[in-house]
Amino acid sequence: MHFVIIGGDAAGMSAASRARRHLPELEITVFEKTLDVSYSACGMPYNIAETDRDMADLVVRPAEIFKEKQGIRVRTGHEVRHIDAGKKEISGVAQETGFFRCTYDKLLVATGASAIRPRLPGIDLPGVLVLKNLADGRRLRSFLKHKSVKRAVIIGMGYIALEMCEALCARGVHVDMVKPRSGLLPWMPRELSNRVRQTLTENDVGLYDGHDIEEIVQEKDALRMVCGDLSLTADMLLVAAGVHPNSQIAAEAGIRLGAGGAIAVDKGLQTNLVDIYAAGDCADALHVVTGKPVWVPLALRANRAGWAVADRIAGREVSLDGVAGTAVFKVFDLEVARSGLSLEEARTAGFSPESVVIESRSRAHAHPGASVIRVHMLADRASGRLLGAQMVGREGVAHRINAVAVALHNHMTVAGFSQTDLAYAPPFGPVWDPTLTAANQLIKKMN
Amino acid sequence: MHFVIIGGDAAGMSAASRARRHLPELEITVFEKTLDVSYSACGMPYNIAETDRDMADLVVRPAEIFKEKQGIRVRTGHEVRHIDAGKKEISGVAQETGFFRCTYDKLLVATGASAIRPRLPGIDLPGVLVLKNLADGRRLRSFLKHKSVKRAVIIGMGYIALEMCEALCARGVHVDMVKPRSGLLPWMPRELSNRVRQTLTENDVGLYDGHDIEEIVQEKDALRMVCGDLSLTADMLLVAAGVHPNSQIAAEAGIRLGAGGAIAVDKGLQTNLVDIYAAGDCADALHVVTGKPVWVPLALRANRAGWAVADRIAGREVSLDGVAGTAVFKVFDLEVARSGLSLEEARTAGFSPESVVIESRSRAHAHPGASVIRVHMLADRASGRLLGAQMVGREGVAHRINAVAVALHNHMTVAGFSQTDLAYAPPFGPVWDPTLTAANQLIKKMN
Repeated sequence: MHFVIIGGDAAGMSAASRARRHLPELEITVFEKTLDVSYSACGMPYNIAETDRDMADLVVRPAEIFKEKQGIRVRTGHEVRHIDAGKKEISGVAQETGFFRCTYDKLLVATGASAIRPRLPGIDLPGVLVLKNLADGRRLRSFLKHKSVKRAVIIGMGYIALEMCEALCARGVHVDMVKPRSGLLPWMPRELSNRVRQTLTENDVGLYDGHDIEEIVQEKDALRMVCGDLSLTADMLLVAAGVHPNSQIAAEAGIRLGAGGAIAVDKGLQTNLVDIYAAGDCADALHVVTGKPVWVPLALRANRAGWAVADRIAGREVSLDGVAGTAVFKVFDLEVARSGLSLEEARTAGFSPESVVIESRSRAHAHPGASVIRVHMLADRASGRLLGAQMVGREGVAHRINAVAVALHNHMTVAGFSQTDLAYAPPFGPVWDPTLTAANQLIKKMN
Repeated sequence: MHFVIIGGDAAGMSAASRARRHLPELEITVFEKTLDVSYSACGMPYNIAETDRDMADLVVRPAEIFKEKQGIRVRTGHEVRHIDAGKKEISGVAQETGFFRCTYDKLLVATGASAIRPRLPGIDLPGVLVLKNLADGRRLRSFLKHKSVKRAVIIGMGYIALEMCEALCARGVHVDMVKPRSGLLPWMPRELSNRVRQTLTENDVGLYDGHDIEEIVQEKDALRMVCGDLSLTADMLLVAAGVHPNSQIAAEAGIRLGAGGAIAVDKGLQTNLVDIYAAGDCADALHVVTGKPVWVPLALRANRAGWAVADRIAGREVSLDGVAGTAVFKVFDLEVARSGLSLEEARTAGFSPESVVIESRSRAHAHPGASVIRVHMLADRASGRLLGAQMVGREGVAHRINAVAVALHNHMTVAGFSQTDLAYAPPFGPVWDPTLTAANQLIKKMN
């Protein structure tokens, strides 16, 4: 049996490795468009923050190890352009050898996502960069090293934009951030997002949300970004305006697309076509709160889905619960986390959400070094179900959100969650964990 | 209606305050044996660690505030010695005014727990101290201030003993720890407890587990503790050998005792006697994993149970889930946490546990500053149910355990837990959270 995988990052290589462990005799071939496989894309901002690191640090396992130790055929520089589901064959173009084709018995589409490049005059100028794959990261490192970058403009204000903002600041670059829609992190209420805004401002970051970008102009040694009355000059412009799923070749092959234009998969990662699976950033997932398909391209799901496909190939039963939309990021001195639905998402999903914002502390009463933790928590008025939470604070936020995530997987009510026996010791929080205080307040408000 | 509360710390004062909020007209009287109410006992080691702090820092709300702002009668220095359930009357002795009696309509027994003082020759010598209430804390601070304490011996190696060990070391005191039973933190496997042992040794703490203490002898300016062939000299001896529930007056009144000699209560905190409730460290609770009564005297349960009693008094329905046995503490550079059952507890409860110890990292692949996190996780072979976990590491342990706690409340299988969507970002952990890696390994072992 020949297991062919399109895409050699988290989902693809997890599937390849696990399939090998399950089935020592299986023929496995991975086609990867770039020259890199199995790397930590999420680590790029932290890598770039330091002048003396190498992008190669982020490679978890080089292609040679997969080949030599696991007998997995890894074809880097091979871009698959066509899937023929009838013939069970894929074809494409290799950087060095040109056209190739290959038949499969089982196919995994793990083509990932690509950075969105808004269609703007000047978007293709040198100095306008994106950050999605390791090649992008190398280009960015090289640009920073060889050009004397003093000022950068980042288009976008999401996770990656904010992580890159911090990374560039760490290298002494002044950063301005711009985006068309007004509001920073609009999935959180202002009481939380303003704390992030404050920290960015304190770090001398220019924040220009609600500015439509009109064009990028080359000016001697600098780039000028023009947005109506606003005009910003920079040595470098980073586009971090989100990603879109690489689902085009799948769609052309008759594979059905789902949420967010990603490939629609069932709980066993199967597409609508027989023997074709999809996993990772190119595929959708069920949301554990709504039970509906959603597209949340994040690393844990990609790894988990890759494993699940390997389990399927090996004939095992697989049924993944889905995602809770849990995410966390660091921006300067702050940890920002979320799980479940935002207020807007809850309304869109048909719930009648009630919510509270509470302020608590990261350490116990009178314990030195405590800082503020703000929690926004929401629940459904009709059913009492917990729907989601977001949190901001200087410490103790990143892992605290996991309690909420597990509660969401179990469809707990906010009353049920408020009864959970969470850990307490003075260096780590108040007796009532901030998430419990939020739950208690929310119950009171709902009564 | 007169609501009488015996005991003015976490459970008692939570009940008093919340009952007041529910019922503005209620007559509320709290009798407290000591002179302090509503303080953070758990904060004492951290307070003692610093030379220039005051025990008063730990008072969350002084008695005056309860009296003046909330109209709650607070009788400090009043020791209740007798409950007459037939007459609905309590009586006792006040430090200043002698005998007192008082009738009630509803009674809350929130008498807490006391430090165990082993019956040893010399246990009553000056310089042999315990640490349970604020008066103990003041005595200890005073002793440290006025005597030139260079060496201390701690009897016991539990949470408080370890927290006090760190506190004394912070004040330049050399600490030896002794206990009769062999093994440090025996509810964890050696792979985890040895990490704690290592950190204690690195901090020059003498560890003498498995030594029966025979006597304490006064020697000129020092105390000598003799345990067979071992003999330790110290300026101070701290007894931190555990606590026992203050359930004696309840038992004498015909109130049924339950787990660990604590007062047996139902899910609504009611004892076997009408109109008598118990909450806090003197009462038992159901364990969410076994469904059986257990005695785990910790602060969150005390606060929650106090609230629940107030809700009952106000005529509301109350049914507390119980405890998961979640606990966390800090010892030098380590965070140590647990939730659910230990391997031994699981066997005793009739499960057939399977378990794994895994080693993971506190930050992502290639992220600077990562340290080792060790997780022990156990599940029931028969049902697949997750039964508990323990964790040790330098960062990211304290709040991570909460995900396990919530899973235990929901009776999740380890397979179910392994599917949860936990947070990931490089500064905060690997893509697969250490608890998920443990779950994945455990599933593999159980197949």
